[in-house]
Amino acid sequence: MAKEKKLVEAITPMEQDFAQWFTDVVLKAELIDYSSVKGLTVLRPYGFAIWENIQAWLDAEFKRTGHENVSMPLLIPESLLQKEKDHVEGFAPEVAWVTYGGSEKLQERLCVRPTSETLFCEHYSHIVHSYRDLPKLYNQWCSVMRWEKTTRPFLRGREFHWQEGHTLHETEQEAREETIQMLNIYARLAEEVLAMPVIKGPKTESERFAGAEDTYAIECMMHDGKGLQAGTSHFFGDGFARAFDIQYTGRDNQLHVPYQTSWGVSTRLIGGLIMTHGDDSGLVLPPRIAPVQVIVIPIASHKPGVNEKAAELVDTLKAAGVRAKGDFTDNSAGWKFSEYEMKGVPLRIEIGPRDIENGVCVAVRRDNREKETISLDALAGRIGALLDEVQQGLYEKALANRLAHTYTATTLEEAREKVSAHAGLVKMMWCGDAACEEKVKEVTGLGSRCIPFEQEHISDVCPVCGRPAKHMVYWGFAY
Amino acid sequence: MAKEKKLVEAITPMEQDFAQWFTDVVLKAELIDYSSVKGLTVLRPYGFAIWENIQAWLDAEFKRTGHENVSMPLLIPESLLQKEKDHVEGFAPEVAWVTYGGSEKLQERLCVRPTSETLFCEHYSHIVHSYRDLPKLYNQWCSVMRWEKTTRPFLRGREFHWQEGHTLHETEQEAREETIQMLNIYARLAEEVLAMPVIKGPKTESERFAGAEDTYAIECMMHDGKGLQAGTSHFFGDGFARAFDIQYTGRDNQLHVPYQTSWGVSTRLIGGLIMTHGDDSGLVLPPRIAPVQVIVIPIASHKPGVNEKAAELVDTLKAAGVRAKGDFTDNSAGWKFSEYEMKGVPLRIEIGPRDIENGVCVAVRRDNREKETISLDALAGRIGALLDEVQQGLYEKALANRLAHTYTATTLEEAREKVSAHAGLVKMMWCGDAACEEKVKEVTGLGSRCIPFEQEHISDVCPVCGRPAKHMVYWGFAY
Repeated sequence: MAKEKKLVEAITPMEQDFAQWFTDVVLKAELIDYSSVKGLTVLRPYGFAIWENIQAWLDAEFKRTGHENVSMPLLIPESLLQKEKDHVEGFAPEVAWVTYGGSEKLQERLCVRPTSETLFCEHYSHIVHSYRDLPKLYNQWCSVMRWEKTTRPFLRGREFHWQEGHTLHETEQEAREETIQMLNIYARLAEEVLAMPVIKGPKTESERFAGAEDTYAIECMMHDGKGLQAGTSHFFGDGFARAFDIQYTGRDNQLHVPYQTSWGVSTRLIGGLIMTHGDDSGLVLPPRIAPVQVIVIPIASHKPGVNEKAAELVDTLKAAGVRAKGDFTDNSAGWKFSEYEMKGVPLRIEIGPRDIENGVCVAVRRDNREKETISLDALAGRIGALLDEVQQGLYEKALANRLAHTYTATTLEEAREKVSAHAGLVKMMWCGDAACEEKVKEVTGLGSRCIPFEQEHISDVCPVCGRPAKHMVYWGFAY
Repeated sequence: MAKEKKLVEAITPMEQDFAQWFTDVVLKAELIDYSSVKGLTVLRPYGFAIWENIQAWLDAEFKRTGHENVSMPLLIPESLLQKEKDHVEGFAPEVAWVTYGGSEKLQERLCVRPTSETLFCEHYSHIVHSYRDLPKLYNQWCSVMRWEKTTRPFLRGREFHWQEGHTLHETEQEAREETIQMLNIYARLAEEVLAMPVIKGPKTESERFAGAEDTYAIECMMHDGKGLQAGTSHFFGDGFARAFDIQYTGRDNQLHVPYQTSWGVSTRLIGGLIMTHGDDSGLVLPPRIAPVQVIVIPIASHKPGVNEKAAELVDTLKAAGVRAKGDFTDNSAGWKFSEYEMKGVPLRIEIGPRDIENGVCVAVRRDNREKETISLDALAGRIGALLDEVQQGLYEKALANRLAHTYTATTLEEAREKVSAHAGLVKMMWCGDAACEEKVKEVTGLGSRCIPFEQEHISDVCPVCGRPAKHMVYWGFAY
């Protein structure tokens, strides 16, 4: 009975220390391991499988919308990084520099890409000459490096996996439509697959990506009331294209400068998943993203026929397209229950000798622990429906959490007071002035999350300066 | 009629300059673009799509045989790289070193991974404690960096994409079986998918991977008679495990050291594809790996109904699972023929007004230019069969090329003479002594490629020293 293996150790309760709870889950659900370099982590098979599922869904969407995958170099020469002024200011302070190749000092130092705008632009300047070469709809799956001072698994790493789309268009309108199209794909990924409700909208100017004319984001709320920016899509105008001399001969036979976008999501989404759905027993995964959707556990497995029947259930479920797995190790049933709860497997099926006699099994939901006896004849259909119910239930629970911790305020004092008991998002008006945004931060600690597409009228004036309000903004603490 | 676009320029004929022909094809088929850093290239959509197809086939095979994907850090601390003596000697001279993070000098320099044995070993030392934790069957898809002096697209890059499998086993036998299992999967990839016939066998000791006890390879012959090592699988024994203190409690409750393997193939395979099948019109791709298997080209496309019919054929083929595409640009038909020949699309379908009247289309094979008129009623079935014929034909042609340029020799003079007219592989006996291997190289220029599993008896003695021969070895020039 697995004497060598330590029992699943208790994880820190969320209410006691949310940050420690997060770290415990990340390690004990076997999502990551630390390496000997701070901020560089190993994505273990279970963690990487979640990323593979995100990749598979997104990659299909990217291809459906006409995008092609490419691979850019890992390293960027310093002179290339410096071509776009805002961009280099944003990234140069936090890049890792390669200075030696073997034993030879390099003539120019090369940074490990923190993002690849400059590389895509250099390549586009080689291959785009005519309007016939447009649009270019490219995407890259890779890891990037940012030499952060403080790091946390999935949320802020010195290296993280992501995809970065980079597109080039004839017209501003087409580029703007692309920017919104990709934001909407991210929103669908978050809501339909990850069961994470999102707020969509542009960021304020001070929160824009280095070099972008407009940055749009999907914003989520975590279990503790803090916000998480889960994906961004940028409209660049023609700034990068001008900086990199990208020009094309248009339909009018004149030279033009194309319009550009970029957009990305990263393994940060996995951090978001954990903090949206997890509980004190560990990870809780929505079925559509779970590497294992159903774990089948034989009860009294030494009794004849039990393991065989359990294996049969696994096969039945697999044949119905369910990602099912059986655990036939000699660990105790109780141990197995804890292990798969820790790993957030959406449904557990228990089957023992008496169940077999009665032609049933018992399904237990990870999210709310509800038990249900299911006739083996109706297994696949009922399990499919149950998985849908879990998916829907997780979304609704996350949405309810967000709504319960979304406040409105018309003064900074009111805003500060409302988030003092429990962090959350504050809906408050804004005049559009960066100085007022700064003041909100100073007085309440809240940063602007986004200017939601779905505007509401909270009051007529900016709570800071009293001038007429231009937008309703979501303000919050954030990861 | 595409006046802005330059006509497809002629590529250097193979016979005139094989190396230049290769570079021309790589650029003109739009597989890669150079970046501003020597040896770092852009994999363009068409080149990357070939790699994606290789990945998809291999990843399914890896998963079928129980392997899991993980992601290791990009950077390796110098002290970690140095833990295994042979390994560091093999790689340290050619790694790229990160010495600064932002503006701060690092306390220890970090190399960009040239391969990840050391990282896997460090991780395994954290997670393997009991025989219950074995085997570990991990794989990683990533790019690696080796700071080579001379570089060539796909064949020798400072950065290249690959997969690296790293596994850990209880017994030597199990690890040895894994090594051969993965070699056989590579051989199937090469022969069944890439239409590249291979010779399988161990490398000689001098050609082993740094740190391996045995290295097995699949060896191919290129069009010019030179060899290409297309994939390797290594048995490490317990050397790395000892160097990294990986131990587990066995079934006998005693501490043991596990056995290890690693295995990899890279984008080098794409270089092999080009040099195996290409011709003076450009790339020739085997159907099973081609991103586009059939290109449909409307003839006299201004005539009513032609484009519509061509689009219908594309849909019919897609519905039958064929990767088909139509070219409806206003380029001339002749231009399009050249373009898709350059890109190596296995089949071209031409359809014009007269064909439509007769209920037929014309299919043209890329490999041998044979034309065939096909009834539209029987299209999908016949195209499927034709693609199989092209696949088979390419394999046979490559095998015939290898056999035609495989020689036997019993003396070094004979070996040298036989490869003087046309490079090729020489089958010659060997006593097993590294000094004799070195002598062969010195006198003939030929290196040992591998000791094939399929041995033949060429003579009784080593042609260098006259002592009894132990093996027949394939000798050749190689990329």
